[in-house]
Amino acid sequence: MEPLYGAVEAGGTKFVCMVGTGPEDIREQTRFPTASPEAALRETVTFFRSAESRLGKLAAIGIASFGPVDVRAASSTFGFITSTPKPGWANVNIAGALRTAFDVKIGFDTDVNAAALAEWRWGAAQGLDTFLYLTIGTGIGGGGMANGRLMHGLVHPEMGHVRIPHDFEMDPFAGTCPFHGDCLEGLASGPAMAARWLQPAEQLPPNHPGWTLEARYLALALVNFICTVSPERIVMGGGVMSSGHLFPVIRPYVLELLNNYVRAPQLLHGIDDYLVAPWLGAHAGVLGALALAQRVNESSSAAHSRRS
Amino acid sequence: MEPLYGAVEAGGTKFVCMVGTGPEDIREQTRFPTASPEAALRETVTFFRSAESRLGKLAAIGIASFGPVDVRAASSTFGFITSTPKPGWANVNIAGALRTAFDVKIGFDTDVNAAALAEWRWGAAQGLDTFLYLTIGTGIGGGGMANGRLMHGLVHPEMGHVRIPHDFEMDPFAGTCPFHGDCLEGLASGPAMAARWLQPAEQLPPNHPGWTLEARYLALALVNFICTVSPERIVMGGGVMSSGHLFPVIRPYVLELLNNYVRAPQLLHGIDDYLVAPWLGAHAGVLGALALAQRVNESSSAAHSRRS
Repeated sequence: MEPLYGAVEAGGTKFVCMVGTGPEDIREQTRFPTASPEAALRETVTFFRSAESRLGKLAAIGIASFGPVDVRAASSTFGFITSTPKPGWANVNIAGALRTAFDVKIGFDTDVNAAALAEWRWGAAQGLDTFLYLTIGTGIGGGGMANGRLMHGLVHPEMGHVRIPHDFEMDPFAGTCPFHGDCLEGLASGPAMAARWLQPAEQLPPNHPGWTLEARYLALALVNFICTVSPERIVMGGGVMSSGHLFPVIRPYVLELLNNYVRAPQLLHGIDDYLVAPWLGAHAGVLGALALAQRVNESSSAAHSRRS
Repeated sequence: MEPLYGAVEAGGTKFVCMVGTGPEDIREQTRFPTASPEAALRETVTFFRSAESRLGKLAAIGIASFGPVDVRAASSTFGFITSTPKPGWANVNIAGALRTAFDVKIGFDTDVNAAALAEWRWGAAQGLDTFLYLTIGTGIGGGGMANGRLMHGLVHPEMGHVRIPHDFEMDPFAGTCPFHGDCLEGLASGPAMAARWLQPAEQLPPNHPGWTLEARYLALALVNFICTVSPERIVMGGGVMSSGHLFPVIRPYVLELLNNYVRAPQLLHGIDDYLVAPWLGAHAGVLGALALAQRVNESSSAAHSRRS
C-alpha cells in the first residue's frame, strides 16, 4: 500500500493542507486564511486528524513554509519560522507542533524550495541539477537546486531581497520592504505594484506602463541570478506572473542585459524554454510539501533498511 | 610514490605553471605574461616537458582558467575558453592542447572555482558545503561550492557581471565593462578604479574616498550573493583586496544593507569570520589547478579500481 502523506503549504496569506499519496492521488484538501499561529496550527491538526480517521495514519508530513525559516536539520530551532515581519509569526515552531501532534517524520523547507522540489519531480525542472524557482506575488521568493540538492547554506536563499539598479528619476517609488525599502521585493512584489499605481496589480491593463517597469526589474534580478548561480532553467510562478503576459516582455530584457556574454544556447536560442511558468501552477507549493513528506519518509525508510 | 601533477593558472595577464605532489611539495614553478595563445601554450608545454625530463611523468594536469570557459564535461567544446573579449583568446582549446601534448587526464575549471577548491582543501573554506570565492582585481570573478560540489550549471557563475545600484549623481562614472558598462566589474574592478580616479588603485591612499565607494559597491554585490546562494562563508581575494584594508570597511556596509533580515549568527555576530581573505593568498589559483589535477586523477583511479 502506498504511504499516505500530509502536506501543508503555510503561506503568508493562506494555509493549504492536503492528504494523498502523490500528485495523481489527492484524497482531501482544505484551505483557510493565515490568522494567528495558534488558530492556523489548530485548524491544520484538526484537518489531518479528521483525514486520518477516515484514511488511516499519515506516514509523514511535509511543510512548505513562508519564511525566513530555520532549515538546518541540526539546529535547535529547526522547523521554526524565524524573523518574519508578519505579526505573531516570528519564532513559531511550526514543524514541532505537527511532530508533537502526529508523532511522524516532518519534511520542512521554504515554500519556494518545496515548489522547486515539486517542479523537479513532476514539472518544469525534471532532469535538471541546477535550477531556480521564483515566486512573484505577495512577496518575492526564490529557491531551487544546486548540484542536484535543494539550495541551503548559511540558512536558505532570500532572493526577493537582492538590490537591483533603481532609477529614482524614472521611478521615484521608495519601495515597500520594511527591511530594505527598494530591494527587489520592495520594488516588484504585487503589493509594491499596488502601492505604486494605487490599484491592485491584477487590475492594471496589460498595456499599462507598470508592466514594462515590472518586467525590467524582474529581468535585472534574473540576470543577477543567472550570473551568480548559472541555473539551467528558471521557473517563475506566483500571482504577478500568473497571467503569463509578462514572460514575453521579460525575456528580451534578459537577453539585452546579458548582451551575449553568457554564451549558452539555452539563452541565446532557447529563452522561451529557459524562463518558464511552473507546470504545477498554483499547486506547486502544496505539492512541494507532499514531495517533502515523501522524501523524508523514503530517506528514513532507506536508513532503516540499511540498518536492518 | 605520490603522483606528480602539473598545474596551470591561466590568467588574463599572466600564466603560472607549477609541478608538484601537493601544496607542501612544490617541485618547480614558472610564470610568464599571457601573450598569444600559441606562445603561452608553447611555453606551458616546454615547462612541463622540461620538468618531466627531470622529475618523471605527470599523472594529470589541472588548468584554472580565466573565462568564460566551457566546463561541461559532455560538451564538444569542453576545456575551451569561449567568449572572452581578450584579443586572440576566444574559442581557444586550452585543455585539448595539453591533453594532446601529454596524453593525461585534464582537470579544468574557472580560475575562481579552482581557487575555491584549493581554499576548501587547504584554506579558509575547509569543512564547508556552500561557500563563495571572489577575486577582485583586473576583473571580478566568483565561484565556489554549492551542496559540496563546485558551482556549475548552465555554464559557470559570472559573478563579476551582476548589476548593482549605481547612483550616477554620486558616481557619474559610466563603467568599464565592454559588455555591460556599469556591472560590478565595470564599476569596481582594479581597472575601473584606475579609470575613475586616473591613477592605479594600489596608489590610492587608504583614506581616499574611492575606497569607500569601492567598499559600498562590493557590499551591494555581497548582499546579493548572500541572498541568492546563502553561502556559509565568502572568501575574497585578488589585487584590490590584497592590502586587507577594505575588509573592515566592507563588513559594516554588508550588515547595514542586510539590516538583520538574514538571522544567522555567522552574520550577526561573526562577520569577521564570514568575509575573509584567502588563506592561500595569491597562490589560491595555481594551487587550485593542482587540486583539479589531483581530483581528476583520484576520480579516474577510483573509477579504475571499481572496474577492476
